[in-house]
Amino acid sequence: MNQMMSNHKRNFLKVSSTMLGASLVAPLDSFAQVVKTDVNPGQNATKRMAQYALNVKYEDLPTKIVDECLRAFVNFSGVTTGSCRHEAVDISIKSLAPISKSTQATILGRKERFDILNAAFINGVSSHVFDFDDTHLVTNVHAAGPIASALLAYAEYRPVSGKEFLTSFYLGIEMSIRLSNALHPGHAGIGWHVSGTTPTIGAALAVGRLMGLTEQQMIWAIGLAASQPVGFRESFGSMNKSFNPGRSASSGLFSALLAKNNFTSSNQTIESRIGWANSLSVNRDYHEMLDDLGVRFETALDTYKPFACGIVIHPAIDAAIQLRNKYQLQADQIKSIQLKGNPMVLELTGKKQPQTGLEGKFSVYHSVAVAILNGKAGEKEYSDAIVLDPKTIALRNKIEVEVDPNIPKKSGDMTITLNDGRVFNQFVENAVGSVEKPMTNTQLNEKFHDLVDEILPMKNANRLLEASWKINTFADVGKFPKLSVR
Amino acid sequence: MNQMMSNHKRNFLKVSSTMLGASLVAPLDSFAQVVKTDVNPGQNATKRMAQYALNVKYEDLPTKIVDECLRAFVNFSGVTTGSCRHEAVDISIKSLAPISKSTQATILGRKERFDILNAAFINGVSSHVFDFDDTHLVTNVHAAGPIASALLAYAEYRPVSGKEFLTSFYLGIEMSIRLSNALHPGHAGIGWHVSGTTPTIGAALAVGRLMGLTEQQMIWAIGLAASQPVGFRESFGSMNKSFNPGRSASSGLFSALLAKNNFTSSNQTIESRIGWANSLSVNRDYHEMLDDLGVRFETALDTYKPFACGIVIHPAIDAAIQLRNKYQLQADQIKSIQLKGNPMVLELTGKKQPQTGLEGKFSVYHSVAVAILNGKAGEKEYSDAIVLDPKTIALRNKIEVEVDPNIPKKSGDMTITLNDGRVFNQFVENAVGSVEKPMTNTQLNEKFHDLVDEILPMKNANRLLEASWKINTFADVGKFPKLSVR
Repeated sequence: MNQMMSNHKRNFLKVSSTMLGASLVAPLDSFAQVVKTDVNPGQNATKRMAQYALNVKYEDLPTKIVDECLRAFVNFSGVTTGSCRHEAVDISIKSLAPISKSTQATILGRKERFDILNAAFINGVSSHVFDFDDTHLVTNVHAAGPIASALLAYAEYRPVSGKEFLTSFYLGIEMSIRLSNALHPGHAGIGWHVSGTTPTIGAALAVGRLMGLTEQQMIWAIGLAASQPVGFRESFGSMNKSFNPGRSASSGLFSALLAKNNFTSSNQTIESRIGWANSLSVNRDYHEMLDDLGVRFETALDTYKPFACGIVIHPAIDAAIQLRNKYQLQADQIKSIQLKGNPMVLELTGKKQPQTGLEGKFSVYHSVAVAILNGKAGEKEYSDAIVLDPKTIALRNKIEVEVDPNIPKKSGDMTITLNDGRVFNQFVENAVGSVEKPMTNTQLNEKFHDLVDEILPMKNANRLLEASWKINTFADVGKFPKLSVR
Repeated sequence: MNQMMSNHKRNFLKVSSTMLGASLVAPLDSFAQVVKTDVNPGQNATKRMAQYALNVKYEDLPTKIVDECLRAFVNFSGVTTGSCRHEAVDISIKSLAPISKSTQATILGRKERFDILNAAFINGVSSHVFDFDDTHLVTNVHAAGPIASALLAYAEYRPVSGKEFLTSFYLGIEMSIRLSNALHPGHAGIGWHVSGTTPTIGAALAVGRLMGLTEQQMIWAIGLAASQPVGFRESFGSMNKSFNPGRSASSGLFSALLAKNNFTSSNQTIESRIGWANSLSVNRDYHEMLDDLGVRFETALDTYKPFACGIVIHPAIDAAIQLRNKYQLQADQIKSIQLKGNPMVLELTGKKQPQTGLEGKFSVYHSVAVAILNGKAGEKEYSDAIVLDPKTIALRNKIEVEVDPNIPKKSGDMTITLNDGRVFNQFVENAVGSVEKPMTNTQLNEKFHDLVDEILPMKNANRLLEASWKINTFADVGKFPKLSVR
């Protein structure tokens, strides 16, 4: 684990120090040139990715990775079923029902059925709309949702065994994370929302593998999927944010369906000077993308959120809950709250006066306020009503945030000053849910029930949870989605 | 017309001279900053675009623009119906038929019917797969195909009058072209295929207008559509190239359908520092995008291809045909052919040894060879068989291309040396099909028949052509697509 982390840190530093270098200028120089050069450190990247997708086998996966994929699937299944009544899901269903006359696939938790492409989209929206999904902490990519959404839809269309499903789930997550790492930090830097861009390719690989694509077809599937990156960070705080992984799921599946019948693409869409990586970021690291496939597992570093909001404010929430519980704090005792955190706290979640529950997820001020008020920051703490509650607003106005690039994203330092003059401090080095302090399986089960018990009777919720932990033992994964419907 | 052109030239020079300036570096600086700045020359760009979409009326369009839209529609209808038997269309139909159980909409020229989203995709593919569609010569965007594909599908779903259809067709084309100009040249420069990126937004505007979206809904439709740019220049020479406008059509329609039911997005997806324009290009010109809407008409500058290949080689083909006809040249008389052209000739169409018909369209060598051999460069000249014919190969190997940035893209200079020592030269200032030397309506009719007579009996082809010229007089445009089916 430490070695995996150090690899990231090294890479992050390396990228940061070179991001203003040659790669930034190359596209424009080349644009003016007459003859394209083929020199590229990612030579054959598209082909190598296709080959890995065809070679990966369940039997070769370390049990640790199988276990992590099951944790990711339990988290996905709880979050996606739990959010199935969200307005964004309702609207998607209402908008697409008149178009999709097919009943091939399930929307988790709902009675309505759709063709597999629209089902992949809607489940992908649902997987992300609570901002409660899995996270890889280098780029904050949330890979499991779009990958599982595409795979489950396909599994209701053609028979898929549990082992094959899990292997493809791993493949899709692993490659989405690696592709994300490869473009980091310039990809998000120019504006992209990575959870809608790289998982399109991950989903195409995952489904393409189940379809039995040839190497050439897999290369084409990658090319078509790469052609469809979705979404910008500007979408944060609107339904468009969950649209991005949703559309990523359906577009990845769409690409694999076409490639299966020999819809052609280029053999080098990923690495070409006028292709994916160059168009989507000002920096590229093909070592992150392709080195040590099957040996180094980024999937091992996937994490799950204990709080239903942007991950950069989890240390602050963790600190607030610890202080609240330790000193039994009441909001009206508090004079001021000082938080010190990483600059990304304000970059991503700096909304001072959120007006909706969704905006509240992008407000460190709201999140800390509800953590003090309720002792938690679950989905219920991000309702419109709580965001607009005068008690919440009064408390969030007492919060000041200071940022310091020396504070890691996983850490935070909080000082609360009371009206009576007392001062309490809490430093959080590793927020709960971080790689160093992951949620336990028991905590994942609690989170599942918090979400799904709103939707299903306890008996059905238990059955769905049990099935989620055993998805790799299913003879026919196509039977799983129906378990989420009452 | 001259004023319109000079505006382009000015813009092109302006962009070229500033493209290495501040905008290139800003994203990375900003990424490291804590607080976003809101200073943006495109302030309210998303909103202003939505407002124009809601305000534009048929009665306000100059007759010249109505006429140009009809020419664009005739060209679209001929090209799309004519290519309905292309392998890329066959594969799309075969791949999507098991998914789409709906028979809402027509695939032009075909008996198979699809839901409106997949129909928009397949017609969009078909509109572009012959590389024979309309072109705006600043960026080479081919806007009419994806816009018409989305609109026709929608018109089979809900009633649309001819005037409303034509107004939306204009709106979609105009905004696709303007958005393309605004990102030029850095957008294609880093790798994007503009015919799959900006028309997604154009299609959402065009359909959204017919749906009666409110201003807020239109803003959201723009945001969702902007989130789905499709395709890279690396796709050129594969089916992925026509995938791009196809997916653009269906994604634009998809966005409008969701926005109609209040699926939310940001209010500033286009202009945000972490939104569309900043993520997709290293330069942006909001004047090109938004100035003089309803006064300056980029649609007036749309052109139609006389030859079924990349537009940058049209001057070479024009020159070759002129020399062939003037001197009644035979291939075996020719010792060598020297072409002087713009650097983009080799940048975009420099394939020396194409192996398929599709690759032939990106080969200036193949195109000049068939122009000499057959006296034309229609769709039939880009069959696999002709590309692999030893006669074609022998002649194309005699061609040398020299590029010179001082030669405009619309011009070319050809010198042919015969085995007997004679030397013939032809300079083409404005290739046929250029803004200065547009195809006449008669030539458009001939092109239509060349394409459609392969698919429909003459009587039906004539009926479809007549209907295309009168699409703005239809009481119900939903009746049009069926006219393309035998």
